[in-house]
Amino acid sequence: MPTVEQAQAWYPDYDPVHGFDHILRVLRMAERIAKAEGADLEIVRAAALLHDASGAETGGEKRSEHQHHSAEFAKEVLEAEGWPLERIATVQHCIRAHRFRGDEVPQSLEAKILFDADKLDVIGAFGVARTLAYDVVMHWPFHAEVSEQFLKTGKKIEGETHSSYHEFIFKLGRIKNRLHTKTAKQIAEGRQKFLNEFFAQLDAEARGEF
Amino acid sequence: MPTVEQAQAWYPDYDPVHGFDHILRVLRMAERIAKAEGADLEIVRAAALLHDASGAETGGEKRSEHQHHSAEFAKEVLEAEGWPLERIATVQHCIRAHRFRGDEVPQSLEAKILFDADKLDVIGAFGVARTLAYDVVMHWPFHAEVSEQFLKTGKKIEGETHSSYHEFIFKLGRIKNRLHTKTAKQIAEGRQKFLNEFFAQLDAEARGEF
Repeated sequence: MPTVEQAQAWYPDYDPVHGFDHILRVLRMAERIAKAEGADLEIVRAAALLHDASGAETGGEKRSEHQHHSAEFAKEVLEAEGWPLERIATVQHCIRAHRFRGDEVPQSLEAKILFDADKLDVIGAFGVARTLAYDVVMHWPFHAEVSEQFLKTGKKIEGETHSSYHEFIFKLGRIKNRLHTKTAKQIAEGRQKFLNEFFAQLDAEARGEF
Repeated sequence: MPTVEQAQAWYPDYDPVHGFDHILRVLRMAERIAKAEGADLEIVRAAALLHDASGAETGGEKRSEHQHHSAEFAKEVLEAEGWPLERIATVQHCIRAHRFRGDEVPQSLEAKILFDADKLDVIGAFGVARTLAYDVVMHWPFHAEVSEQFLKTGKKIEGETHSSYHEFIFKLGRIKNRLHTKTAKQIAEGRQKFLNEFFAQLDAEARGEF
């Protein structure tokens, strides 16, 4: 089992969205859910520590494939530790299936737990912070007018600026409904409400209504 | 009177904390307060458009003196427009007195209004966003442990990491009490509560309590 100290070396010194502080929050949350749901803790821990370990840098070119890069990297690390192939494959599935925009769906309880723990860190106060930080890295505004088309289809019209508020409309506002485990859904209640209230307030202030 | 289009050219294309979107929110808020309080609208508008126009870039070396640089720049701009010297001096006082950490205190109603409008943009949802963005620019974490000494004196102990949470403890949590006008104090009620709840939630999540 890789240690937290080993894992820290796989992550950049600073990344406000997918940095090591995110990994530690996901690890802690995944352990909490795993204990409540009776999952395999070793699989969950390894998957949490490794899930963004390759290609996940915010704004990086490999981001859209980082679940595959990280799964490959996980294989190297766990093989070197002498893990049985079957358990390595189990960790790899967790990692490949953790993306909201990915095409592999979580099948095992452990994969569902990593997905849920990762998504709980995009809602709540750290979810707000990480979403806004993404804007800063990408030089997007925090708020921009959302077109009718984007509201309906998630596709921007020509010239439409991306913003955190768009990310809220497209993805963040309905995270709770995408979670798998009962434990995560309970934790998500308050965090989802908190996030939704934040973006409602941001929108109101942007319109000068508050 | 400089136009909004002219003013846009004085500000960087992108600055997540002191960019032109901040100027526009302060302008709109300052106008709203000025109308309610019966202030000189022309003075307030000029001061709002010019208040961060020189040296205010986030993370820039001149930031701690930007109120003086911007006041000098305002003089040049308004002289070129043929403003009377006395009214230029009035605008300059507003600009020099707008900083929370500055040493010139707002004397006129118009200076109080610029101060208040600027501070209303550090609380509420945009206040949260701008504070977190400052972390990203400076590569600080969103949350770090606050020492007993910092809580009491605002001075960090050796090795203590700065974070948004420190900024909240030192400055943001008590903005409401520093405002001057009745109108701004009323608007601040909800925004201060919103900001305080955000940082309470961030702290709880950082401790794994939520």
